[in-house]
Amino acid sequence: MQTKQAPTAARGAPVTDAIFEATFEELARVGYGGLNRELVAARAGVNKSTVYRRWPTTLSLVEAAFASTWQGSVPRVPNTSTLRGDLEMLVVELDRIVRSPHGRAAARLFLFDARAPELAGIAATIGAEEEARGPKLILDRAIGRGELPPGTDRSFLIDTVRGAVLFRTLLHRNGRLDAAYARELIDAVLHGVLRGPDKKPTVKKKTRR
Amino acid sequence: MQTKQAPTAARGAPVTDAIFEATFEELARVGYGGLNRELVAARAGVNKSTVYRRWPTTLSLVEAAFASTWQGSVPRVPNTSTLRGDLEMLVVELDRIVRSPHGRAAARLFLFDARAPELAGIAATIGAEEEARGPKLILDRAIGRGELPPGTDRSFLIDTVRGAVLFRTLLHRNGRLDAAYARELIDAVLHGVLRGPDKKPTVKKKTRR
Repeated sequence: MQTKQAPTAARGAPVTDAIFEATFEELARVGYGGLNRELVAARAGVNKSTVYRRWPTTLSLVEAAFASTWQGSVPRVPNTSTLRGDLEMLVVELDRIVRSPHGRAAARLFLFDARAPELAGIAATIGAEEEARGPKLILDRAIGRGELPPGTDRSFLIDTVRGAVLFRTLLHRNGRLDAAYARELIDAVLHGVLRGPDKKPTVKKKTRR
Repeated sequence: MQTKQAPTAARGAPVTDAIFEATFEELARVGYGGLNRELVAARAGVNKSTVYRRWPTTLSLVEAAFASTWQGSVPRVPNTSTLRGDLEMLVVELDRIVRSPHGRAAARLFLFDARAPELAGIAATIGAEEEARGPKLILDRAIGRGELPPGTDRSFLIDTVRGAVLFRTLLHRNGRLDAAYARELIDAVLHGVLRGPDKKPTVKKKTRR
């Protein structure tokens, strides 16, 4: 597993980085429809002409900010050599990403703003980057190890986990998502709430009353 | 089950209704941070002074629009007398709501804008309205019928379904979510992907080929 932040492309001078960070923070706060380069400049602590000169439109600024760090907007994919371990880490990683300004900006753009034709290109690139990171690899490896049946609907499984985590993280903003939730979610998806947590598929032990 | 749209409160003249509809459409399109009363007026086909005079701030317009139709922003709760039937209908109902301008506006506000202190009141009322509709009643009734164990984590189960559906509906904008997806999701949550779809704990009926 990677322990360091993934490298970012096309980042440069501290001023540029500060403007991109401020862009993500404002995108996370108000979305693309409310983005204002003057407020971005104020948040970055630079003169507004610095922003207007380099990015003549709001769209060009947003494109440049995302292009500087596609990888920062999507979760890394764990490889713990068990399906359960990988999925639980993916839950934690998704939570971390969606709490960051980059990740929240990307989620907002992806879920709500991608209808705007001028944003379709950015949304497609984020989607492709996420696909390239390969969350489905988790499932391919699990199929290879015999932990999942070969016909498993990989998109369905990943999207169910992703949707449940996004919803929870966005609604519960105080404090990170806890490990108990990650276990409960992966138990539910793998075994179902009717079966309960982590029972082995072998004969049940009798319990004394 | 209800077949008619739930009644809405505080709706009145056609002009008011048109302005509220336009408000939801713009909220769904650009979010609260990008909302502009002039564009709302243009979309509603009224003079901008009509909007400015009645709602002196963007916030007052948004509050009035939601107050006119809290119930239109949250899903109705089915009662089909089986857990599976209720959850599958809830999936379809959530999809319908999130595709409507009211529902998308509410989702956007709830997931992304509720941090803004001035919107906390609206978000809390939408949340309370959703709670009052009682999605957890589905689970209480199922517990009463012996379909779910008494200790079931109701918030977890409802939020997992809600999150998975919201994510899917917002990402796949063309065409309604299909019944096969609703079945697959409820199968996964109740029985787990490892168990597969809808296996009865009893002996299967043989089908003729």
